[in-house]
Amino acid sequence: MRLTQFTDNALRCLTFLALSADELNTAREIAQRMGMSADHLVKVVQRLTQLGYVETIRGWKGGVRLAQPPESIVVGEVVRQTEQSFALVACFETGDGGCPIAPACGLAPALDEALQAFLAVLDRYTLADLTRERRRLRDLIAD
Amino acid sequence: MRLTQFTDNALRCLTFLALSADELNTAREIAQRMGMSADHLVKVVQRLTQLGYVETIRGWKGGVRLAQPPESIVVGEVVRQTEQSFALVACFETGDGGCPIAPACGLAPALDEALQAFLAVLDRYTLADLTRERRRLRDLIAD
Repeated sequence: MRLTQFTDNALRCLTFLALSADELNTAREIAQRMGMSADHLVKVVQRLTQLGYVETIRGWKGGVRLAQPPESIVVGEVVRQTEQSFALVACFETGDGGCPIAPACGLAPALDEALQAFLAVLDRYTLADLTRERRRLRDLIAD
Repeated sequence: MRLTQFTDNALRCLTFLALSADELNTAREIAQRMGMSADHLVKVVQRLTQLGYVETIRGWKGGVRLAQPPESIVVGEVVRQTEQSFALVACFETGDGGCPIAPACGLAPALDEALQAFLAVLDRYTLADLTRERRRLRDLIAD
């Protein structure tokens, strides 16, 4: 069981920006310092901008920063918004992958309840909670 | 976010066997009636046999059946045993995919707490709970 790389990179990017406070970093710099592909990160920054988590300052000294305080960015919400699908199994797919008993099977409702419990835990965490060890984290991303 | 196809097929196979009670079915029959690949299902049956959920009766009228009553097969346990990895993000990978701030970041503990909540819900369901609509389910898998 795994989140998509997109969600992983989105959380990693937001965490980096929370540690950078008002400093501006380009997507390339963030990618380099956080061990991500720059191409992936450009798409992640675009999506996080659409979602209102990130803002881009243009110009030769420009870059990216958080558009909200870390205390107001809820991890569960970010995961809901960046994860493409929460179809944990192929139950409701049609065609070859589809399961003939899906209409009456108790698995999908049980998995949905489990998923809601998963997300409810992440709703209790903000970006500020992920970056409590601020000094140690900043040392880890220092050049 | 998705479970592996292996776990999906394992749950689907167990559900079929719960509906079949003491009838014996070959892996090929189960695969055909549940819309799965026969090759995948042979591996799934091997693993479910190792885990003690399934037993194989040999001979020309042989086949596969549950080795335990559906009431004693806990969905959360099956998922724990069949899912290869619960590394929801690449936090702790080393090399290119690894995240430099993993040692001090709050994401991994938050995700672990969320995962435990997910599995705790599935621990409240048995295979018997998934097959409550027995008559309708049996109609759906009828030849």
